[in-house]
Amino acid sequence: MALIVQKFGGSSVKDAERVMNVARRIVDTYKQGNSVVVIVSAQGDTTDDLIEKAKEINPNASKREMDMLLSTGEQISISLLAMAIQSLGYNAVSLTGWQAGMTTDSNYSKARIKKINTERLQKELEANNIVIVAGFQGINKYDDITTLGRGGSDTSAVAIAAALHADLCEIYTDVDGVYTADPRIVKSAKKLDSISFDEMLELASLGAGVLHNRSVELAKKYNVNLMVRSSLNNNPGTVVKEENKMERMIVKGVARDNDVARISICNIEDKPGMAFKVFSLLASKKINVDIILQSIGREGKKDISFTVNEDNLEKAVEILEENKERLSFEELKTSNEVSKISIVGSGMVNNPGVACTMFEALYDANINIHMISTSEIKVSVLINKKNADKAMNVIHEKFNLAE
Amino acid sequence: MALIVQKFGGSSVKDAERVMNVARRIVDTYKQGNSVVVIVSAQGDTTDDLIEKAKEINPNASKREMDMLLSTGEQISISLLAMAIQSLGYNAVSLTGWQAGMTTDSNYSKARIKKINTERLQKELEANNIVIVAGFQGINKYDDITTLGRGGSDTSAVAIAAALHADLCEIYTDVDGVYTADPRIVKSAKKLDSISFDEMLELASLGAGVLHNRSVELAKKYNVNLMVRSSLNNNPGTVVKEENKMERMIVKGVARDNDVARISICNIEDKPGMAFKVFSLLASKKINVDIILQSIGREGKKDISFTVNEDNLEKAVEILEENKERLSFEELKTSNEVSKISIVGSGMVNNPGVACTMFEALYDANINIHMISTSEIKVSVLINKKNADKAMNVIHEKFNLAE
Repeated sequence: MALIVQKFGGSSVKDAERVMNVARRIVDTYKQGNSVVVIVSAQGDTTDDLIEKAKEINPNASKREMDMLLSTGEQISISLLAMAIQSLGYNAVSLTGWQAGMTTDSNYSKARIKKINTERLQKELEANNIVIVAGFQGINKYDDITTLGRGGSDTSAVAIAAALHADLCEIYTDVDGVYTADPRIVKSAKKLDSISFDEMLELASLGAGVLHNRSVELAKKYNVNLMVRSSLNNNPGTVVKEENKMERMIVKGVARDNDVARISICNIEDKPGMAFKVFSLLASKKINVDIILQSIGREGKKDISFTVNEDNLEKAVEILEENKERLSFEELKTSNEVSKISIVGSGMVNNPGVACTMFEALYDANINIHMISTSEIKVSVLINKKNADKAMNVIHEKFNLAE
Repeated sequence: MALIVQKFGGSSVKDAERVMNVARRIVDTYKQGNSVVVIVSAQGDTTDDLIEKAKEINPNASKREMDMLLSTGEQISISLLAMAIQSLGYNAVSLTGWQAGMTTDSNYSKARIKKINTERLQKELEANNIVIVAGFQGINKYDDITTLGRGGSDTSAVAIAAALHADLCEIYTDVDGVYTADPRIVKSAKKLDSISFDEMLELASLGAGVLHNRSVELAKKYNVNLMVRSSLNNNPGTVVKEENKMERMIVKGVARDNDVARISICNIEDKPGMAFKVFSLLASKKINVDIILQSIGREGKKDISFTVNEDNLEKAVEILEENKERLSFEELKTSNEVSKISIVGSGMVNNPGVACTMFEALYDANINIHMISTSEIKVSVLINKKNADKAMNVIHEKFNLAE
């Protein structure tokens, strides 16, 4: 008798047939004697369609109203999924974010969970109901509906698993688990049986795209037993858990992030405080900066290069140009024809030659590196986008990840 | 500085253009210095589409889950309408049924309003917001979402107008107001400047289709100043109010109900209690019976005929056939090729010849009457559906309603 939290994404419930498949899988878990709480996202393209509807009327709608609108997507999928389970002869009850006690701050469109009041959830579980909860949404102190932003449903699932002290939190996706590299790009990529929270965090933020890092951070904080597995088959999936130091591999996987853009601020004055001015300006507009590279220039000038998410490129350029005089730089150069390739592995910290091996693989393949960034458990390089797939393959091979 | 409640139906907000039109109309009212609360239905076919989605998965879904699903329709339209008003430069805030304090009983899919907690509504009005409330929905004591069933949004509007002691409750439809007859059928039909609550109640329940009788009953109970008007033009509309005895006309209008079916129970035993048995059986299945006619038969037998809503015909026949032995009747005859034509007017009670004049009009037109039913302020007849339009015209003319 375990308590299992299962999370299904939008593509898993995109039409009636998929909803019924998910319902059968949930019922299977329930029939094995488990209590089941299910978190579900909006069906397929629902959220995009709602955004389209809003844009037609007001491209600058208030975020409060956008959250009111978008939260209907999950409300539709929870009720349909509950109906599907009922049609199989089992008791199910759907709960919106606010009904499930998901309280958040008031940062509409990217609210953060503050607390989960589990009273209602527990009452429904005690009544032997399969409980279906709307992911991605909550309620603030004004009784207004909020949404959690990107990766919101994963985060909802992990938060509810933590609050209920669930035995397991299963995240269902359209892949079998976490791989040493994207199997669509690297044919010999291998599924990992397990990965540590820290490694998963690096992979998530590096564009591996299986789990959002907010949910992994939360799982790490509350030590939630997490499993990533496929909604399309019964393969075991990958367990994400506290690191087992005995087992650690030097390099766990290779990830690619294509949604990246590089900005170079050329010939900025070489005096104290310039980097602070540039990055505090970007931070004030909530633009996250990833890799930063500063080069020594000539005649009291230098270049500062950095990467941002591709979506933020325009905004970043705009704010920098507005402050061109104050920052006293000569020109901006930008490119979104770049990709970030990273290797991740918690064993890396004790193996100084790892980065070098990666660079060697790229050199052998005649791939030029624009920027380099390292942390204790990862090495990232920025290269031309057209070389990204080739780079992943040569790195995967160099580290023998297929074995 | 008046407080005005406005209600817009689904066709008034069916697409972005219509939503903007409604927004402009609301802003016009607000700019004249009024406080405005708007009740809005789901856009166009949204509710039907959602029902279709549910049916695909589970044709017998629980009503709780259906209400969870359907309530998203209004939640979408309130947020879009609030965004539209914001795009015109005015402050608007959307509220779901539960946020607006609309508490109901737990009769899912046709819940009745128990109380409106106006705290939030009043707070938003004090902040000078235009308040957009989801019609048709509320919340029960378990914190579950309920819907109010047919005519729900009109009822929401009147209930909120009553709770806030609004100066006026405007119900916007696609017609200019209440007519002496349906202008699509009777070319000379005339718009009424005003009509009493009781007359409107009879017209609403008789299929005039402008206002649902639940909302009129509520308006009468709390003496809400009601106006029915068009969302497509600025014509003044029809005021629905307490009867002014000085003004009363003998016949106010002619209405038609085509969604009616007749059931005849033939050769049932002529002994005490038979009518009770038949109608309590139907009541137990929540089938409303309208006109009842009992004829004396031969040899200890009689016939009982009555009308039900066309949608209930199948269910009524089924339950009667199941109890054929207990009720000991010979056969059931049914027809849905019938229409109910009614005349309504509060002056009728003092004018005994009114019914007779109606029958004469039908006789002159060679239209046969199957059943007759009368109340203090109306006379209804059941005739063949194919004669319905003709009947309305000859009755309208006979009573000189065009003048």
